[in-house]
This record gives sequence, C-alpha cells and structure tokens, in this order.
Amino acid sequence: MSALNSIFSVFLPKEDKFFPMFRRLGEATVEAADLFTQLISETERTKQEELYLPIKAIETECDNIVINIFNELNDAFVAPFDREDIHELTGAIDDVVDLITSTSKRILLYKPKNIPTKALHMAEIILEGAKCERIGLNELQNMSKHPEVTLEQCQKLHDLEHEGDDVYESFLQELFESETDAIELIKMKDLMQGMESATDKANSVGKTLKTILIKYA
Amino acid sequence: MSALNSIFSVFLPKEDKFFPMFRRLGEATVEAADLFTQLISETERTKQEELYLPIKAIETECDNIVINIFNELNDAFVAPFDREDIHELTGAIDDVVDLITSTSKRILLYKPKNIPTKALHMAEIILEGAKCERIGLNELQNMSKHPEVTLEQCQKLHDLEHEGDDVYESFLQELFESETDAIELIKMKDLMQGMESATDKANSVGKTLKTILIKYA
Amino acid sequence: MSALNSIFSVFLPKEDKFFPMFRRLGEATVEAADLFTQLISETERTKQEELYLPIKAIETECDNIVINIFNELNDAFVAPFDREDIHELTGAIDDVVDLITSTSKRILLYKPKNIPTKALHMAEIILEGAKCERIGLNELQNMSKHPEVTLEQCQKLHDLEHEGDDVYESFLQELFESETDAIELIKMKDLMQGMESATDKANSVGKTLKTILIKYA
Repeated sequence: MSALNSIFSVFLPKEDKFFPMFRRLGEATVEAADLFTQLISETERTKQEELYLPIKAIETECDNIVINIFNELNDAFVAPFDREDIHELTGAIDDVVDLITSTSKRILLYKPKNIPTKALHMAEIILEGAKCERIGLNELQNMSKHPEVTLEQCQKLHDLEHEGDDVYESFLQELFESETDAIELIKMKDLMQGMESATDKANSVGKTLKTILIKYA
Repeated sequence: MSALNSIFSVFLPKEDKFFPMFRRLGEATVEAADLFTQLISETERTKQEELYLPIKAIETECDNIVINIFNELNDAFVAPFDREDIHELTGAIDDVVDLITSTSKRILLYKPKNIPTKALHMAEIILEGAKCERIGLNELQNMSKHPEVTLEQCQKLHDLEHEGDDVYESFLQELFESETDAIELIKMKDLMQGMESATDKANSVGKTLKTILIKYA
Repeated sequence: MSALNSIFSVFLPKEDKFFPMFRRLGEATVEAADLFTQLISETERTKQEELYLPIKAIETECDNIVINIFNELNDAFVAPFDREDIHELTGAIDDVVDLITSTSKRILLYKPKNIPTKALHMAEIILEGAKCERIGLNELQNMSKHPEVTLEQCQKLHDLEHEGDDVYESFLQELFESETDAIELIKMKDLMQGMESATDKANSVGKTLKTILIKYA
C-alpha cells in the first residue's frame, strides 16, 4: 500500500479496506498459478529461472497483504465477518500461493530428469482452482446478492480437489511401478505432493467461503 | 440422514442432533480401523481391494457427517459446547478416519514387498484407540455423570500414542539398519508415518474430550 | 510445579501463574537448542545418546507446562490475553521443542554416515532463534514498557526463518547434485526438514508475540 493510500484509508470504513485486499489475493493466485503451468512445461533451465522470479515476487506481495489483513483483524469488532473465518480464509489463500512457490523452487533445486504428463495435468487443476478462488474472492463483498455464484465456485473447488486426488493416486501407482531410480522417485513424489496439497488448500478456500456465505448471506 | 429423519430433526432441540452424529463417528472409526487391521494382514491383492471399498465408503459417510456438524455449528449459540471445541473434536476424528483411508489406499498403490510385524502392531494400536474414541463419543451426552469413564479413555489414548511412538521409532531404526532397497524403504516409511499420525490424531480426540469434560462437567 | 508452589499459586492472581510458565518455556527452549547443537556436532554414538537424554527430559517438562497453561486457559475470562493468542503462542513454542527432540532422536535412529556443515549451520540458526524466543517470553509480562525489545526479537525471528530457508534450499540443491546413495539422501533430507520446520515455528512464536503486543501494548 502506498503512503497516499494509507492516508486515505484512514477515512474509509473497515470493510472497504478488506475487500480490495482479498480481490488482489485472488488475482495474484491466478497469476502465480499461470506462471507455474508455464514453468512446469519448460525444459530449459534459464527459462525456468526467469519464470520463477515473478512467482517469488507474487508470493512476497501476498505475504504483505496477509500481514495487512491480520493487522486490521486485530480490531476485531469492525471486521465485516467473524475474525476466525477471515483468518482461516486468508491462511488458506496464502498456503496455495506458498505451495505454488515452493514447488516451483524445488523444480529448480531438484532438476528432475523429466516431468511426467500427470504433473502438467496437476498444474492445470491448480490454475483452474485459482480461477474459482478469484471469482469467489471478487464476490466476497456482494456474495449475498448472487449466492449461487459463490456456491458454484465452492462446488468446483471441491470437485477439483477430488480430481487432484485421482491424478495424484494414479501418478503414485505409475511411479512405484515404473521408476527404478530411487532419487528420481523421491524428487517427483515430493513435487507432486506439493501440488496435491495446493489443490487441498484451494478447496479449504472454497469451504471457508461457503461457511461465510451461510453465516452472512 | 434420511429425509424422514431430517424432517423430524427440525423439531428436536439442537443437542439431540449433535450427539447421534458423534456416536456414529465413533462407531464408524472402529469399523474403519477394524477393516484396516484386516487389510494390512492380507497378502492377496484382490482381497485387499475388497477390504478397501468399505473403508472408503466409511470415509465418505464421515465426511458428510462432519459437513452436517459444521453446518449446525454455524448457529453457534445453540450448540451444547463451545463452537471451537466441537470444531476441534470433529476435525480430529475426521483426521483419524482420513489417515486410515489414505494409508489403506497407499498399500494398494505401493504394493510393498512385505509388511513388517511392527506395521500390524501399529494397526492394532489404531484399532484399540478407535475403541477408546467410541466410548468417549458415546459418553459425550452424559459425560458429567461418569467423568471417570471419559478420563480413562483420554488416558488410554495418551498411552497408545506413546506406544505408537515407540513402535514407530524402533521400526525406523530397524528399517534403516536392514532395508537396502531404497524404494521399499520409502514405501514402508510413508505407510508407517501415516499410521503414526493416526495415533497422534486419536490422542488429539482424547485431549479435546478432556477439555470439554473440564469445562462442562 | 512443586506441591508447595501449587498450594501458594491458589492465592496468586491468574497472570502471576502464566508468566513464570512462559519464562520457563523460553529458558527450556534455549537449553534444548544448545544441547542439540552439541549433539549434531558429535560423532561418537554414546555421546550423542548422552546428549539426547536431557533434550528428551526438557521436552517432557515442556509438555507438562503446556498442559498446565491449557488447563488455566479454560477459565478464559481471567487470562491476561486472548485465549486463542495464548493457545497459538504455547502451541508454537511446544512445536519448536518437539521438532528439536524428534530431530535429535532421528539422528540416533538413522545413524547418517556424515552430517554436512549446512546442518550445523541450521542448528545454530535454531539456537539463535531460541534466544530471541527467550527474550520475547521474558518480556511478555512487561512488553508494553519496552515494546521495541519484543519487536526486535520478532524481526530477528523473521530474518532467521529466511536465513533457514536459504540454507535449506542450498542444502537440498547440493544434496541432489552430489548424494548418490538414495538412503543417505532420505536421511539427511528428513533431518534438515525437521530443522527447517523448527525455524518456521520459531517465527510463528515471533508473529504471535507481535500480535499480542499490537493488541495489548
């Protein structure tokens, strides 16, 4: 937040501070997920590194937004929603971005010999989930007007987590059937686990949005 | 819940909706743990798969019960106990069932060459813990009448977690001393870790039951 | 707590029970971290085992303090701070001690062929963080008088987590570049991951201290 924004924001009601931050988190998650799908499809080392830099920058930006949200939350009574729900929502969004970033970094560190198709599929599930999160977070301010929009995203995030589970399980089965190099197996198991956790956390975002909707809409 | 039950439950006081759901969670945990001890002792692939199906069905049933409990919880003031305690209790029970299910699935996916005796021992600890959880959850409605019954289960769950730790540690020591096939080592380490987490979560159920007992009994 | 202390503490206001427990947790964390840096530098098996015993004893002591704090917390209105903040703070301190203890135990169980320099570096980061935690916990009772002291520790814990991340990442890169024995790789990856989590949790202690400071100072 710029200094000027900070000055203006003093005069804004509390809610008007929260919603733009959540909208930015939604947008940033899509940006990170989109860069991640590019990075995971990329085989050239230098291009992977170029794609990692903006992902890391987005993670840092999100960390700062999360700190701002938590600071605002400490004035609990002014928050538009229950403190604990906002805490849970923010934490889950942040976890998704963190998992995208750490998995990206590990691709650089591990230098896996090849990336299986199922990993690309998983990255696409993460990107699709990020788009659902973005819609849900954009709706946050007016969710009661069109509750069906939020509910649809929550359902999609739930379905994407299950799709992610299936991809992960069939990936694990293939990996243990065909990979004979234990070190390569460790690398890919670790990378896929990070991605599978990202789809879990995206569903946590959906579940918390649904809780908020039921309470306030 | 059947449609008929749903209709009747509208006329029931809130507490009478919660307790049967917790009793069912306790029963379901025992059923899943019992099937799991059979699955882990089984060497035939098709029989393992036959045992997995009802475990997965129990997990799905528990997920639905958990969603019902969380939905009811959103009317926070009517709940018989603190919202956060019920949230924690429900989450921990669900984690136990999830870990039993995911470990079962991984046995199918990993096809480990052999299952060591210590893994069977761990499964028995999980089953014994599930039985303690069942007693504790059955007592929930009347825990103040016989607090010693609940306290005994909490103590047993605590002791079982420590027993689980010891089995896990001596298993790890043996594994790293004797297993020379790195991929087999990864499989068994992962399976035992899932089981060890299940005993941790069972103790979390016990700890939350104790918190509730101290507050309300 | 000795029996005599228990008797006296009945007459003490609530706050005077909390603060000494937190001071002891801070001191105990430093003691455990200090023993851990010795253990990880030690190559003789019997000396490693000798160093593990007091670490385990400190962990048990901390577990008991945590149980005492949680029991006191159930009288929520008397607590000097928000119940949930104290819960989070206590949990994070306990996690640091647990991770130091479990990593120590795993060194004994895994018997890694050699401990890389980066692991010693990580142990020093944990010790430095423990000293920041100790100062922060000593200040808890009077944090509003010298808020800059607490804030300085929070900043240091934040920086130490980032330093820990960097060490962990460059360790992983080296490990996957140079370690050809998959089982040794699994051992060191697991040990370093435990230590990296300890620096994360130490930063969680710092973040919660900052939240408490902002709310009450």
